[in-house]
Amino acid sequence: MQAESGAVRYRLTLEYDGSRFSGWQRQAPGVVTVQGVVEQALERLCGHPVLLVGAGRTDTGVHAKGQVAHFDTTCARAPEVFVRALNVLTPPDVTVLDAAEVSAGFNARRAAWREYLYRIFARRAAPALERARVWHHPGRLDLEAMNQAAQRLVGKHDFSAFRAANCQSLTPVREVSLAELRVVGDEIHFVIRANAFLYHMVRNIVGSLVVTGRGRWSPERFDEVFHSLDRKQAGPMAPAQGLYLMRVHYADPAGNLPLS
Amino acid sequence: MQAESGAVRYRLTLEYDGSRFSGWQRQAPGVVTVQGVVEQALERLCGHPVLLVGAGRTDTGVHAKGQVAHFDTTCARAPEVFVRALNVLTPPDVTVLDAAEVSAGFNARRAAWREYLYRIFARRAAPALERARVWHHPGRLDLEAMNQAAQRLVGKHDFSAFRAANCQSLTPVREVSLAELRVVGDEIHFVIRANAFLYHMVRNIVGSLVVTGRGRWSPERFDEVFHSLDRKQAGPMAPAQGLYLMRVHYADPAGNLPLS
Repeated sequence: MQAESGAVRYRLTLEYDGSRFSGWQRQAPGVVTVQGVVEQALERLCGHPVLLVGAGRTDTGVHAKGQVAHFDTTCARAPEVFVRALNVLTPPDVTVLDAAEVSAGFNARRAAWREYLYRIFARRAAPALERARVWHHPGRLDLEAMNQAAQRLVGKHDFSAFRAANCQSLTPVREVSLAELRVVGDEIHFVIRANAFLYHMVRNIVGSLVVTGRGRWSPERFDEVFHSLDRKQAGPMAPAQGLYLMRVHYADPAGNLPLS
Repeated sequence: MQAESGAVRYRLTLEYDGSRFSGWQRQAPGVVTVQGVVEQALERLCGHPVLLVGAGRTDTGVHAKGQVAHFDTTCARAPEVFVRALNVLTPPDVTVLDAAEVSAGFNARRAAWREYLYRIFARRAAPALERARVWHHPGRLDLEAMNQAAQRLVGKHDFSAFRAANCQSLTPVREVSLAELRVVGDEIHFVIRANAFLYHMVRNIVGSLVVTGRGRWSPERFDEVFHSLDRKQAGPMAPAQGLYLMRVHYADPAGNLPLS
């Protein structure tokens, strides 16, 4: 959608703790969502109803360190004023990291790629401090096998095997440009970058990577499951609390290029 | 104290999220403390009242990644059984990382040194995800000046300037073997190691280091305040939520050496 005439479009970058939220997307009244609380703050600030369009519709319990969203307002202000005022008006589990005025050609949904992080806490004893931030997996995981499996994801593929039953995307094809696991202290971090993601795609992939890491599947078996395009063959879905939307990248972050 | 005859002494290593606790030390009934909840779990397990002696009496809201404690029981079990059973019986914000049988010569209080970490979140925007785990300082901090100041702490000194008014230690002299700051992402981490600590010592030091980092004091002024031995000259105390008891080191972790 284009900005109304007389309206100015802004891009926001947001960090949030997903624990308390029923995801990003505004729902029925009374359901607390990130989009909902930020729209409420924007309405108080702008004096008119505001529609906030997010790059990624993160699910219930999923966190973000770099969600991007845009909105239009007829009440233009310096971007710095939006950052300061929104951080006063939003609850402490949502932080606005950045605001910028963009042209009407910018649309938060039209990202070149998104990057997600999934944190697996791989120590035997459960984490007391990080318990709402990671998935605790007490057993040993074979990082080498998991990385071999993850490499199969890179490229343009049909991700039907890792797609939620109620996913509403028109096509199951996505292009993954990065998929790797590395050890960070007691944790295994899985980073995946793609042009876009299907509903529950990262958490379904992580579930199947962990089945591989536990030695129940070889990397070849992971690949067979992936190419079966059959969700029922995949592993159990990993929980939401380990997932972070880290970055959203745009070919044209200011929206200045002519629309093709 | 020595173990009773017939009793076996165990050493526990503990991690906890201090947010919900009125510190380590057991207090009046109804006040939730870490010592209290672990002692309750041990009583259920051992069938008799248990006294848990901790290496560091962490304050309200202070976290631990490596607290050490000991207790005696007449109901001996494999250490592994204690780890598993305690992690079922204690709440999720307390985790037992390790248990070991030690001789009666071991006393958790008699540590060679303790190490604390203090996390300062130095980004302008408040942290949505780490908000209960760090001290947010939105302004710029001069790490070089802070490190110069911190170096003055190393060695055997009278720490009266950084001691709480109600500190009950017999002497204000402590020996610091390490005190350094480093940048970790958006955070500044202060690590300090000493034979022992006075009440509120780390948080008072961090408060004065931040005054230095803001440019209000030179490292020389920090040193003057330190050697004034006057708490009223020092900076404001840093909040509890950024502080972590990281490690407790013993010359004799099994308690086997003859007592001197």
